[in-house]
Amino acid sequence: MPDHDDQSLEADVFARDCSSRSTLQTVTGRWGSLVLIALGESNYRFSALRRRVDGVSERMLSQTLQNLERDGMIVRTVLEAIPPKVEYHLTPLGRQVADRLQGLIDLVQDSMPTVREAQTEYDARRETKA
Amino acid sequence: MPDHDDQSLEADVFARDCSSRSTLQTVTGRWGSLVLIALGESNYRFSALRRRVDGVSERMLSQTLQNLERDGMIVRTVLEAIPPKVEYHLTPLGRQVADRLQGLIDLVQDSMPTVREAQTEYDARRETKA
Repeated sequence: MPDHDDQSLEADVFARDCSSRSTLQTVTGRWGSLVLIALGESNYRFSALRRRVDGVSERMLSQTLQNLERDGMIVRTVLEAIPPKVEYHLTPLGRQVADRLQGLIDLVQDSMPTVREAQTEYDARRETKA
Repeated sequence: MPDHDDQSLEADVFARDCSSRSTLQTVTGRWGSLVLIALGESNYRFSALRRRVDGVSERMLSQTLQNLERDGMIVRTVLEAIPPKVEYHLTPLGRQVADRLQGLIDLVQDSMPTVREAQTEYDARRETKA
């Protein structure tokens, strides 16, 4: 049996029905990752968070926050005020996840010169073929 | 100025038009992340990779591989054989990204008991409200 078929030691995140795959998608998804990173900087209210995460719609942000809250990554706190203020902050688990995401994002950002070089070469090869 | 509005020190990954946001999506996307982790285990040919990443369609895998290749994360090698064999492997950058992704996945998988507890509580609160 070739070793890449030996799944016994591997993460079950590869299995389509695994619940960890769904949680992974929640935290690495287009908006989930940015919301976690933003909340790693500071607590946010909904409207300020929407400004921070450029381009997210109200509906998508609301859905993303619900998913992150359900998975235990963030907490929604209602502050007593008139009108009541709702604030979001990371749980200890959310903090751990945000830290690892930040490491990944830092790597991607620091690597953008390499990425852009690869993109240019790839596009040039494509053009030659076309 | 509240500190969460100070974007000067922050990742520009928050900006909707930033190219690093697109690359981040490529590597953390539903299939991109699993493909990188799989190629972190071993080189793969297309059909074996498709078996490894449970649930991915041929079309989505093909698109994912093209995106990862374009961003300089993987290399596509044509091995001389009849018929020719095509194999995919990580670049040094892809390896670094895969390692960080693996760290994130390990954390998520190790935290699934906490996540499931949060989900149960969240769903119970929802039912009480309904």
